[in-house]
Amino acid sequence: MKNRKLVMIPGPTPTVRSINDEMGRETVAFGDPEFVKDFKKLILDLKEMWKVDGECFVVAGSGTMAMEMAIANVTKREDNVLVVSNGFFGDRFIDICTRKGLNVDVLSAEWGDVVSPDMIENKLKEKNYSAITVTHVDTSTGARAPIEEIGEIIKKYPDTVYIVDGVAATAGEREYVDTMGIDILLTGSQKAFGVAPGLAILWAGQKALKRRKSLATIPEYYIDFEKWTPIMNDPTKYFATPAVNMIWALKESVRLIKEEGIEERYERHKRVSDAFNASLEALGFELLAKKECRCSTLSNVLYPEGIEDGEFRKILAEEGVMVAGGLGPYAGKMFRIGHMGNIDDHTVYATMAAIERTLIRLNYKYEIGIGVKTLLENLK
Amino acid sequence: MKNRKLVMIPGPTPTVRSINDEMGRETVAFGDPEFVKDFKKLILDLKEMWKVDGECFVVAGSGTMAMEMAIANVTKREDNVLVVSNGFFGDRFIDICTRKGLNVDVLSAEWGDVVSPDMIENKLKEKNYSAITVTHVDTSTGARAPIEEIGEIIKKYPDTVYIVDGVAATAGEREYVDTMGIDILLTGSQKAFGVAPGLAILWAGQKALKRRKSLATIPEYYIDFEKWTPIMNDPTKYFATPAVNMIWALKESVRLIKEEGIEERYERHKRVSDAFNASLEALGFELLAKKECRCSTLSNVLYPEGIEDGEFRKILAEEGVMVAGGLGPYAGKMFRIGHMGNIDDHTVYATMAAIERTLIRLNYKYEIGIGVKTLLENLK
Repeated sequence: MKNRKLVMIPGPTPTVRSINDEMGRETVAFGDPEFVKDFKKLILDLKEMWKVDGECFVVAGSGTMAMEMAIANVTKREDNVLVVSNGFFGDRFIDICTRKGLNVDVLSAEWGDVVSPDMIENKLKEKNYSAITVTHVDTSTGARAPIEEIGEIIKKYPDTVYIVDGVAATAGEREYVDTMGIDILLTGSQKAFGVAPGLAILWAGQKALKRRKSLATIPEYYIDFEKWTPIMNDPTKYFATPAVNMIWALKESVRLIKEEGIEERYERHKRVSDAFNASLEALGFELLAKKECRCSTLSNVLYPEGIEDGEFRKILAEEGVMVAGGLGPYAGKMFRIGHMGNIDDHTVYATMAAIERTLIRLNYKYEIGIGVKTLLENLK
Repeated sequence: MKNRKLVMIPGPTPTVRSINDEMGRETVAFGDPEFVKDFKKLILDLKEMWKVDGECFVVAGSGTMAMEMAIANVTKREDNVLVVSNGFFGDRFIDICTRKGLNVDVLSAEWGDVVSPDMIENKLKEKNYSAITVTHVDTSTGARAPIEEIGEIIKKYPDTVYIVDGVAATAGEREYVDTMGIDILLTGSQKAFGVAPGLAILWAGQKALKRRKSLATIPEYYIDFEKWTPIMNDPTKYFATPAVNMIWALKESVRLIKEEGIEERYERHKRVSDAFNASLEALGFELLAKKECRCSTLSNVLYPEGIEDGEFRKILAEEGVMVAGGLGPYAGKMFRIGHMGNIDDHTVYATMAAIERTLIRLNYKYEIGIGVKTLLENLK
């Protein structure tokens, strides 16, 4: 029998049957009382679980749209913005901000590392920033920013709105909006939520909402918080048609998260990630992200001598596991493998076994079985 | 057995099983060769079937986002835009344009009527407009604009980009981009395509694309044509994660349209609409849209004396049919019922019978059975 394809790229992630089933339901009117109830409950759950005394927005779009939405609602032309970039997706904020006429300063880390909170604090002392963006986990590097520590610093700067890009982190890495001093947290549906791509999800605290209010009309329409706030509080109201099936799917994902326990889920991601990384290292691979800032949602894996990217990923796909290539300077030198969202031990072991089968087919010299063995010893 | 709920609001429309099934598939990587092939074919089909020598964009979002996307890609601050409004959704362009710093002139029709091509031509003679927006069918009124006739006029004005909002029309009303002189046609997935809400769909002809090029960088990021053009031509490329399952569902919708025949589909919508409207009139209802500009995708139905909106729609919902209320000045005075997308005769008759059951429960004085009888006589 042909192998199923395990979607181990860092998003979309594997979608479980109960989420698929929600996606596949007959669509109802967005004013249907049952859908209204579901949508309302979803928003309340998201606000409660991510601890925000503010608003939560669930809008048809993508994580990229969520990034633009965050910026658009808290800045105006000529404002200063500080972009803290630890890779490809951190840099993306530069383009978003620059085209909106914002003055952008950038703090960049070497790929695999993160910008230190000290460097950020020094910048904040120098200049008045309307907003600062930090990518929690940059999928291009697998490095995780110390968002809580940064939040402590930003609390001292009342004019600076703290935007955390959680696209490759949210629902897999610990994030609590108000208690971590985050003003906007943003993500997409297809990463650690394990839903199909198609939704932008944002949490906005009081500081961000107050800023939005102070801006009066903004140039953007569809991504304007003020257009969506009434709907998120009362989904019988209308602005633009909500993505009914996608919202059901996200609701099911949230139900699964509650069933697992959100803290247990974060711990599980850490446990799987540590064990998986240990196995990769046992196979002779190196990881791009430095140990002290390594994320739990994906691994960014450097090829050892003699393994060619195209061939490795082609054979691995034949063995039934899809992974992603490297971005930017690491294209061709790295593969990126997700282990986030709704995956169980079966998926983790099956993936490692497929990696081993691939190495065997490539005649790579290593101790056959050491990858799976290391998992058996570490994944507890 | 409890009645199924027929989603007869003017979008979302009933989703057929084969489209639900595409929605409910296990999500794959957006770089998965089979998905890439499907996405590519979808774009080619959409371009061919709607006759555009240009680009087609399928992006996670909504029809409202598509409206903003059209404006953002062909105008810059201080440009003149002519908004031709035949109702609530025509007016929506005023807000979108104004907040982007555009100078907006508006031609408005009385609700139920449309602005005449002559009035549009007179305006175009007066001033140089960068863009003109026309709502093909405004769901608030059910009036259909003569988009082809307007297209003939605009062809004489090389600086004016002709934007047609097809949200309540596309795939139900005849629209051919290049041959009708349209520069941008836009819609959403949940109307006559019969897919769940969550996608913005746009076609852009050469005139619109040339305008986009001339603008260099625009302030908008996620809805920038230039970001998406490479992906729409080669979906192995990456900008923002495409909504995999939604795209599959749209692909299935397009397959159904090809199976039916696109011209046959337009004829079917006209036939169903004419018969349905005749039945509504036989029941003693009046239609808001004037006969000479009445659309084929929905009916905007004025209540006769003695029928109260809230009660009518509540009982009709109990009988298993969801319809929408009136907008703006017609809130409480009208219901709006869609008959577009992937609906068959069973749905049409079942809907009419549910309306009759509702009237009977309301003790409305009329000839019982006349609605269904009129359908039997007219729907051929």
